[in-house]
Amino acid sequence: MKALIMAGGQGTRFWPLSRELYPKQLLKLGDKHTLLQQTVLRLDPLIKPRDIYIITSGKLLVDIKSQLSEVDKGVLSGNIILEPGPRNTAPAVGLGALYMKKADPDSVMAVLPSDHLIKENKKFLATLKKAEALARKGYLVVFGIKPARPETGYGYIRLGKPLGGGSYKVDSFVEKPDVKTAEGYVSSGEYLWNSGMFVWKAGTILDEMKEHMPGLHRSLMKIGRALGTGKESARLEEEFGAIKPQSIDYGVMEKSKNAAVIIADFPWSDLGSWDSIQDVMPADSEGNVTVGKVVNLGCKDTTVYADNRLVAAVGLTDMIVVDTPDATLVCRKDMAQKVKDVVGALKDRGFDEYITHKTVQRPWGAYTVLQTGPMYKIKRIEVKPGAKLSCQMHHHRSEHWIVVAGTATVTRGDDVFPVHVNESTYIPMSTRHRLENPGKVPLQIIEVQNGEYLEEDDITRFDDDYERV
Amino acid sequence: MKALIMAGGQGTRFWPLSRELYPKQLLKLGDKHTLLQQTVLRLDPLIKPRDIYIITSGKLLVDIKSQLSEVDKGVLSGNIILEPGPRNTAPAVGLGALYMKKADPDSVMAVLPSDHLIKENKKFLATLKKAEALARKGYLVVFGIKPARPETGYGYIRLGKPLGGGSYKVDSFVEKPDVKTAEGYVSSGEYLWNSGMFVWKAGTILDEMKEHMPGLHRSLMKIGRALGTGKESARLEEEFGAIKPQSIDYGVMEKSKNAAVIIADFPWSDLGSWDSIQDVMPADSEGNVTVGKVVNLGCKDTTVYADNRLVAAVGLTDMIVVDTPDATLVCRKDMAQKVKDVVGALKDRGFDEYITHKTVQRPWGAYTVLQTGPMYKIKRIEVKPGAKLSCQMHHHRSEHWIVVAGTATVTRGDDVFPVHVNESTYIPMSTRHRLENPGKVPLQIIEVQNGEYLEEDDITRFDDDYERV
Repeated sequence: MKALIMAGGQGTRFWPLSRELYPKQLLKLGDKHTLLQQTVLRLDPLIKPRDIYIITSGKLLVDIKSQLSEVDKGVLSGNIILEPGPRNTAPAVGLGALYMKKADPDSVMAVLPSDHLIKENKKFLATLKKAEALARKGYLVVFGIKPARPETGYGYIRLGKPLGGGSYKVDSFVEKPDVKTAEGYVSSGEYLWNSGMFVWKAGTILDEMKEHMPGLHRSLMKIGRALGTGKESARLEEEFGAIKPQSIDYGVMEKSKNAAVIIADFPWSDLGSWDSIQDVMPADSEGNVTVGKVVNLGCKDTTVYADNRLVAAVGLTDMIVVDTPDATLVCRKDMAQKVKDVVGALKDRGFDEYITHKTVQRPWGAYTVLQTGPMYKIKRIEVKPGAKLSCQMHHHRSEHWIVVAGTATVTRGDDVFPVHVNESTYIPMSTRHRLENPGKVPLQIIEVQNGEYLEEDDITRFDDDYERV
Repeated sequence: MKALIMAGGQGTRFWPLSRELYPKQLLKLGDKHTLLQQTVLRLDPLIKPRDIYIITSGKLLVDIKSQLSEVDKGVLSGNIILEPGPRNTAPAVGLGALYMKKADPDSVMAVLPSDHLIKENKKFLATLKKAEALARKGYLVVFGIKPARPETGYGYIRLGKPLGGGSYKVDSFVEKPDVKTAEGYVSSGEYLWNSGMFVWKAGTILDEMKEHMPGLHRSLMKIGRALGTGKESARLEEEFGAIKPQSIDYGVMEKSKNAAVIIADFPWSDLGSWDSIQDVMPADSEGNVTVGKVVNLGCKDTTVYADNRLVAAVGLTDMIVVDTPDATLVCRKDMAQKVKDVVGALKDRGFDEYITHKTVQRPWGAYTVLQTGPMYKIKRIEVKPGAKLSCQMHHHRSEHWIVVAGTATVTRGDDVFPVHVNESTYIPMSTRHRLENPGKVPLQIIEVQNGEYLEEDDITRFDDDYERV
């Protein structure tokens, strides 16, 4: 069996902790591994690293590679599929199926979101194995979750004829219900939540797409013919431009006669919004979840996430407070679904706090913007032991570097020299330079940029360990 | 008439905007002047600047002088009285009375808090004038406010025999009532709020203290004999150590037979907590007061104060959110009185966000701590045109300075040299140095400190324009 991990999420629902360039799947939420890393690790030993495919967007590639390398599971870099743009789940699934069918025409593929929470892994793997058997018989298998509450945020699946071993034909898919309807679904025992996890043969899903989504199928076939050739990325770009966004649920599952559902009885959460954070973090006796430097006076059922600074919460009930270095969210718990509208409002108003964090991860370490002012910008730069930034040049800024921890090797023009703690150096405009940590402990420098244009895109790269030239 | 402005407030109720070293009276709340500056300006032309006395604590002296110099009202620096420690209002009033009686034995003194809001200044001055006449007859006059609502946070005054012109003998002072009692007070028309503003002869209040607070009076007499001599500050220190904290209301007013109240019919607020911010800042049609970079989705009657960073508020009703660079408060409006308990909790837990802001005002400009790390600290320093820091030395740190705006004159040991934009210099440990802005625009430098001890008290001053040597 192969797995297609869907890692193209947009990072709107967990704002301000998630950002467009650092979405939920890249976050650690109450675990030492990120949700993406957990998704990969969870497949061991049923699915081999070389059989894991990850589909995402180019702007997340560096971070995803970096996170995979941390868990060192041997996921092949050729198995990372880049979508030219977000087109919902059906095109991503189709693209994954093309890759897998090419690798092995009989491939069974599990489609797994990269940002869900799953516990009791043995049960998960057992369910996956049973689903594989159904998939080999030609079924499109969806994982159904026994509803724990009359949730109105999920789609439901009505059970049809039993197929044995906790699996059923799907009678029908139903859209997100209102509370009353949801209560009826839960008490009837005939409905399961649609988890968004699927298992099928790559060939089967492509055949079903041919029947139910012929336009998408035609595009996929054109892409398929270019796969592995020099034309692949141009063809992908071209076809994806014309593909309409569509979900696999609406596009195929709701129309197919071969849909089956298997009961998934492991603890699961889609972590769909901030109010689900209590699924991953323990609450105190008053139902409060607090992370970081928090002073709580008389709060109840309230989540306070303080990244770095102090947060004082007084008399709050059923609230969510999330504090990050550049943005704070205060939200009623039952309106947590509106957080994505906040991100929309930020875009509309030209604010940029939805794009990145103040601290930006890089393959060589990280940088934090401490301050921006007219004609200057101050960054703290941390370089991992043995790592180096690209050899680069800026046309519009000079840089002062002061080492505050570790030792740097600085290349400036033709000179190469060490800079130690409490020493500084200066990089004039339009001068080739490179920063490297030759040591065994992290290097930290403070960079003061001066110039009339101080954006990240004023960079000309000459050489790079991370293929960004 | 003279005025004693009480400016020793502790800065707990408006935390995190107010701090121990930057209390409410120093804040601008919806006005171009701070509350202290407004209090001084409000007395013009009735009370001359040289007749204004300000009583405060030494740790606020520099900021108070700096704020007075900004409004340039000619308040004499000899009129700033420093209390050795907080002892509530009675000792402060007594000390002020000593000063005033010494200047003129027939002084009438108005006692005015420095952090109240008053509008319609003509009415205020007219009330002050009428109170002066009563004070000259020997009354202790308190300003009473017609209650606008059954407030449970104030003491009330029951009206006695009319004295004409909107003034009355005081029948009795009553403590903060419960809601039901307060409602009765308001509907009876016989009660006024106790505003904490008083007018009396300096001699009268000292006589009343002799009767009702004999211990305090004895201490004051000892201090009085040392006034203006070389022993003054030692005597003050000595006596204040033994004085019990006591309010003038409880210590004298409630016991005196000569208490009178005058109806103050100007708009007034004591700005006693964050929920009174709506008295100074305009609300939108939904009752929301927002300051700064705020995204509001469906909030009602909510105050969001964003100092610098972005705050998103979703679905809040009757809430207060206050965001500052190092601390955020989220508080139910009807629990705004609990904010002082937050400050208590911070002290108990050893957090220091109640002491100062990240940006600290100095007579020569301001500095902001951008980041602290092990063995390093980064500051942005802004020096006003023409101003200079003290000539100083540090034993435990060296400093890198990078000029990002303006031009600096740097003294380092025996050298004096200019440092321009995009230039840097280095001050080794134990080296005398001085930073000066010789120019016409603000000087901004980034300072990176390196060393094993980086606190403000590692400073030896040799020369200072602001008498801090």
